[in-house]
Amino acid sequence: MSKIEITDVILRDAHQSLIATRMRTEDMLPICDKLDKVGYWSLECWGGATYDACLRFLKEDPWERLSKLRQALPNTRLQMLVRGQNLLGYRHYADDVVRAFILKAAEQGMDVFRIFDALNDIRNLRTAVEATREAGKHAQGTICYTVSPVHDTRGFVKMARELAEMDCDSICIKDMAGLLTPYATEELVKAIKDAVDLPLQLHSHATAGLAEMCHLKAIENGCDRVDTAISSWAGGTSHPPTESLVAGLRGTEYDTGLDLELLQDIGMYFYEVRKKYHQFESEFTGVDTRVQVNQIPGGMISNLANQLKEQNALGRMNEVMEEIPRVREDLGYPPLVTPTSQIVGTQAVLNVLTGKRYETITNEVKIYLQGGYGQAPGKVNEKLRREAVGEQDIIEVRPADLLAPELEHLRREIGDLAKSDEDVLSYAMFPEIGRQFLEQRAAGTLQPEPLEPPPGDGPQESAPTEFNIVLH
Amino acid sequence: MSKIEITDVILRDAHQSLIATRMRTEDMLPICDKLDKVGYWSLECWGGATYDACLRFLKEDPWERLSKLRQALPNTRLQMLVRGQNLLGYRHYADDVVRAFILKAAEQGMDVFRIFDALNDIRNLRTAVEATREAGKHAQGTICYTVSPVHDTRGFVKMARELAEMDCDSICIKDMAGLLTPYATEELVKAIKDAVDLPLQLHSHATAGLAEMCHLKAIENGCDRVDTAISSWAGGTSHPPTESLVAGLRGTEYDTGLDLELLQDIGMYFYEVRKKYHQFESEFTGVDTRVQVNQIPGGMISNLANQLKEQNALGRMNEVMEEIPRVREDLGYPPLVTPTSQIVGTQAVLNVLTGKRYETITNEVKIYLQGGYGQAPGKVNEKLRREAVGEQDIIEVRPADLLAPELEHLRREIGDLAKSDEDVLSYAMFPEIGRQFLEQRAAGTLQPEPLEPPPGDGPQESAPTEFNIVLH
Ligand SMILES: [Co+2]
Ligand SMILES: [Co+2]
Repeated sequence: MSKIEITDVILRDAHQSLIATRMRTEDMLPICDKLDKVGYWSLECWGGATYDACLRFLKEDPWERLSKLRQALPNTRLQMLVRGQNLLGYRHYADDVVRAFILKAAEQGMDVFRIFDALNDIRNLRTAVEATREAGKHAQGTICYTVSPVHDTRGFVKMARELAEMDCDSICIKDMAGLLTPYATEELVKAIKDAVDLPLQLHSHATAGLAEMCHLKAIENGCDRVDTAISSWAGGTSHPPTESLVAGLRGTEYDTGLDLELLQDIGMYFYEVRKKYHQFESEFTGVDTRVQVNQIPGGMISNLANQLKEQNALGRMNEVMEEIPRVREDLGYPPLVTPTSQIVGTQAVLNVLTGKRYETITNEVKIYLQGGYGQAPGKVNEKLRREAVGEQDIIEVRPADLLAPELEHLRREIGDLAKSDEDVLSYAMFPEIGRQFLEQRAAGTLQPEPLEPPPGDGPQESAPTEFNIVLH
Repeated sequence: MSKIEITDVILRDAHQSLIATRMRTEDMLPICDKLDKVGYWSLECWGGATYDACLRFLKEDPWERLSKLRQALPNTRLQMLVRGQNLLGYRHYADDVVRAFILKAAEQGMDVFRIFDALNDIRNLRTAVEATREAGKHAQGTICYTVSPVHDTRGFVKMARELAEMDCDSICIKDMAGLLTPYATEELVKAIKDAVDLPLQLHSHATAGLAEMCHLKAIENGCDRVDTAISSWAGGTSHPPTESLVAGLRGTEYDTGLDLELLQDIGMYFYEVRKKYHQFESEFTGVDTRVQVNQIPGGMISNLANQLKEQNALGRMNEVMEEIPRVREDLGYPPLVTPTSQIVGTQAVLNVLTGKRYETITNEVKIYLQGGYGQAPGKVNEKLRREAVGEQDIIEVRPADLLAPELEHLRREIGDLAKSDEDVLSYAMFPEIGRQFLEQRAAGTLQPEPLEPPPGDGPQESAPTEFNIVLH
């Protein structure tokens, strides 16, 4: 192994993790010139929740963002996160929509497609991977890392082999919850690199304060690339700081070769940008190791807290926390990531609040148990499945095999409001907010949600701090 | 190597690094019961700047704090930081004061004395180490880590050998600025462990975001103990989070054996405590890798910014930053830590503001060049030395060899205001603020500096400027 390659997630996962995906394109463009000079392997800048947030909150056309970023970053690979057959939405789309979306994104300049499925059911990756390959772009097959009685290194290696057979260009280990430990990383990375002759990339969230150490053990065991976030948007539920890894590897066989002083400039820029979005910051931004005890991702806990608060039942949080592992077991231990984290969490809340487990079963749990999201990693609770699904057939095939082509139908539905294929895809992803966006655009009433002024506004304008001083 | 041992610095270095050493005893005691159950190797809880801060700002008797902590933590080693012959002050004290201080602290329950000298001149450690051994306590000889043309692994190993010969019970690598990188740590730890048969402890600040990785490489190469801070006071200029390391090593040969859930409770407690001291937080609390480029500790930069601001010369910061390495070179590359960071920084400011280098030479620089702080690590600038010292003799001996016993003199000076030996020692450490404290205590007018109400309660002032005046 030599030179470690870096993907900076500042334009996607960092702000998705820290400020609910609210960073605006106008705050990305001014620094693109510097970002483009760093020499990153790629910049993750699109996909995940950004598409939704653009339409719903920022009233930006996500395709316009992509086009502007492409223009401003001519020398750097652009990377996006794709939820397999769910693309950037929350349901399985028909193959024609998946293909159209991937091909359009590729045409608009996307270089690297990181594709995952919440259940690690690789059948749900196939269409997206094939479309990416067809477009001549980089398909990164992704393994969602989790810990459960049915997950082990052998299973993850098997999946890595299958991703390689599917002609993925590289493999990603996606540790969305910060569950990896340094020596678990060592074992996993070594095993995958032994089994599969593809570049391996590690995406590990800093939630529990372990990701830096995981990076190091990954790198020492042959991992080729890691995801980091520029320091002013690093740490906590985001990722380890880019500058620290670059500094830490300088002069070693792993040297990233990136320019630390340039990165520091970029860090300062984003430090200022972050202030603009203070209203979206969580109160708690530090290290939280609870996931290492209870395996429940931090983001899921805060969502549940909000759900419970709305029902005036915050006091039952502990019961919900105890119920989550039981629901997860009943569902065959899915990794907890969009949408499974929501499916498990909501059912756990219902089980606690109704006072009787599964007295009410959500529609999503029913679909899940029927096989509508794909195959569960372990055995599901059969009794529960019968209760939920009743006489209906269990879906054994790839769920999207049951979906008829839908793109032309969607195109007709949205009609003249769509001025382009991209517009049709926005409507396809999010029928309600996509339509609303297109309607407001037509009416000239698009209006981004307002930003609150900086705290302590009023006369006190803090003196320039030592940290704004440019040192070079 | 097996079981890694942990020193938590929450009661000393964490708050010294983050809130200018302002944590009050009343916020330590309620959690001591839990802290005492964790099974830490030790709790750093005294020394460094805490003594000064108690007398100066909190109007607490530091000896009373020690006695209360001792009582509340019956099962855990208490640890303090001692600046060698400077003890907890800023000048060299006579041997009788050093001995009396160490013996009294031992008598009052201190178990572990971490003893360092800013120049790594081990002659300045001898009296403190001998007194610690005489008291039957643990003497930890400390190597201040720095990077310069005259510092290398061989030199640090030589110092470790000398500390072992001095009968230290263990060795500490003190990386006060966050300069260590993972593979520099590997080399250094391996070399010291190969050379010296003593437990080795790593103290590395998280400033540059590298300390977690340094810990891991230290541990893998035979380091026995590391310093961490409970997560809600970890990161940035403080230390890596305790919980993360505990979680990261669980189930491995290095397992700390500490109870993660108990630590999480403690973390939550201190999370709430921290809010009380918001007025002392720096605006910037994240990762700052600039030290990896310019070797200038973060705390030193903020002090200089304050000095320049007072002189309306903040715009000359860049010149000062460029002057610092030159002054450091002239002084034979001292590690930058109290008091050398202040000595170098102040002279650099003068050199820039007066427009002519060394037109004015501070008294401290003069004493330094004369040998009054001990032996410089490298050769000093001889021309500058002659200019500064003139006809006076160069001090070749251990500086304290020139100091006559002073304790009885100090005792007479402070007279009846001192009600105990401890009071005399407070006066000895800090003649001005020690006396003021004793006078106010006699008059019943001791009054801790006020704390601002939590933010959101109206207009807010910026943090005070003495932040980080003392670098450990
Ligand atoms: Co992520
Ligand atoms: Co320190």
